[in-house]
Amino acid sequence: MSILVVGSVAFDSVKTPFGEKDHILGGAATYFSVAASFFSDVAIVGVVGDDFGPEQEKVFHQRRIDISGIERIQGQRSFHWRGEYGFDLNVAHTLDTRLNVFADFRPKLTDRLKDSPFIFLANIQPQLQREVRTQMRRPSLVAADTMNYWIENTREELLETLKTVDLLIINDSEARELAGEPNLIRAAKRILEMGPKRLVVKRGEYGAAMFGNGSYFSSPAYPLDDVFDPTGAGDSFAGGFMGYLAAAGRSDEATMRRAMIYGSIMASYNVQEFSCERMLRLTHEEINQRFSDLRAMTHFEDGEAPRRRI
Amino acid sequence: MSILVVGSVAFDSVKTPFGEKDHILGGAATYFSVAASFFSDVAIVGVVGDDFGPEQEKVFHQRRIDISGIERIQGQRSFHWRGEYGFDLNVAHTLDTRLNVFADFRPKLTDRLKDSPFIFLANIQPQLQREVRTQMRRPSLVAADTMNYWIENTREELLETLKTVDLLIINDSEARELAGEPNLIRAAKRILEMGPKRLVVKRGEYGAAMFGNGSYFSSPAYPLDDVFDPTGAGDSFAGGFMGYLAAAGRSDEATMRRAMIYGSIMASYNVQEFSCERMLRLTHEEINQRFSDLRAMTHFEDGEAPRRRI
Repeated sequence: MSILVVGSVAFDSVKTPFGEKDHILGGAATYFSVAASFFSDVAIVGVVGDDFGPEQEKVFHQRRIDISGIERIQGQRSFHWRGEYGFDLNVAHTLDTRLNVFADFRPKLTDRLKDSPFIFLANIQPQLQREVRTQMRRPSLVAADTMNYWIENTREELLETLKTVDLLIINDSEARELAGEPNLIRAAKRILEMGPKRLVVKRGEYGAAMFGNGSYFSSPAYPLDDVFDPTGAGDSFAGGFMGYLAAAGRSDEATMRRAMIYGSIMASYNVQEFSCERMLRLTHEEINQRFSDLRAMTHFEDGEAPRRRI
Repeated sequence: MSILVVGSVAFDSVKTPFGEKDHILGGAATYFSVAASFFSDVAIVGVVGDDFGPEQEKVFHQRRIDISGIERIQGQRSFHWRGEYGFDLNVAHTLDTRLNVFADFRPKLTDRLKDSPFIFLANIQPQLQREVRTQMRRPSLVAADTMNYWIENTREELLETLKTVDLLIINDSEARELAGEPNLIRAAKRILEMGPKRLVVKRGEYGAAMFGNGSYFSSPAYPLDDVFDPTGAGDSFAGGFMGYLAAAGRSDEATMRRAMIYGSIMASYNVQEFSCERMLRLTHEEINQRFSDLRAMTHFEDGEAPRRRI
């Protein structure tokens, strides 16, 4: 089945302790779609300026990603994020955000895209997420991301959007802030009362956790000694997760859990280089290798504890 | 096999968002020994003042813990820690530390204790850890803990101690600081070059990771919606870990991994009440229940990814 993602296609200027790059291809929809494209068809709804040219198009064509839903605004520039990471790569320091073409973005879906069975509402204004959601005809799975900015500034709109979402994929601090609850397990319970049937919490180098359906699943991050640029980790996680789900065409517990692992794998490859460079060279053999590795790294045998009698 | 632990037997005054208690039984050796006592025999070497009386002795006798190696100093008071936790229960704020009897502590081991096959050097001055270590005759496994204070102030002594240790059990920030390396995977490699053959990194609510023997194992924390007082979590983890290892009498990979899970389980019960109160009521059935739960919470099925051809 195919996925529709609505979100930013952008340019990033990123500085990490290991290097610096200006004006590289980024944006949530970019990372998401490249990751998802390993598993299923994916189409983007978004907007770019006239700085988006053949060089960028090539990336999407190379992964056979449908960009016919990307609107082009002549005489304007694409969304641009400038950020920096210190040695604690878990924390991005935003230096500058220019919405540019995104400031007046109103997503319009073609008839064909309205029929997409899977949809990912990447981190954009909750009002826009809902505008896309209401245009969809009969999606079988609607997933969304959000961020602290929307939780703090457009809470009511966000809560409306959450009522129409099956699956929320956010990070640790966002989950605590959304629920107003420092304990993550309690925070998850509250969020599941807001609408989503499932909650996936991304925890950076600590992995991810999935709540809902009366179950809890914890997956580790792939251990890396060469994290280079964490930009896009969360979106490539979501892309691997949704891409696998769409390809599997099921959403039972076992499938959702495997989706978590594919999410972790795509994020782990993504952070090893700037932009989506590493993902663009990735093979299915490499994906399967990290899947086996993660199984081995989490496996322990069943049994009973030796019982000392007092 | 039996375990010897050297470390503090203390009184704590703890304030959390959920309650406050003054002068309750604490100390690394206390938490460690109570947790380990579910699996194997354990003896403490430490020192207390004359505020340590029948009420405290009862706790150790109840768990059949050997306290004959605890020295009593008349006219002085036991080690006392006063601390506070905010809603972020991961961070303890120390308000006051009184070494009292611990200031002049020189551990002396009886002949019988010198023959203990397992030893845990809890978080005390590295010089004292080494004094204990050198008195041991032929231990089969030596494990140690330490903390930022010793890493910063007695680094050379600590490095000497590490040369004589098989297994180091420390937390995340301690591992990064000891190695002088923000990436945990690289930090672990450096620490394994300092002497220990295995490194266990405790990550609070994110679980724990084990390095060494060419392998990596990630175990989740038990998800709790009622963390009450995190004091002693690390030491009850170490107690469950070492207690299980000593009872199993092996240290192959599979046994070490199961030990990690028992460590997590003992820590998870410990943080649900003040002091060791919850552990003192714990049953083997409850331990086995969380073991099964953790297996279920980490399980995912093998297989290959659906492969989209480009």
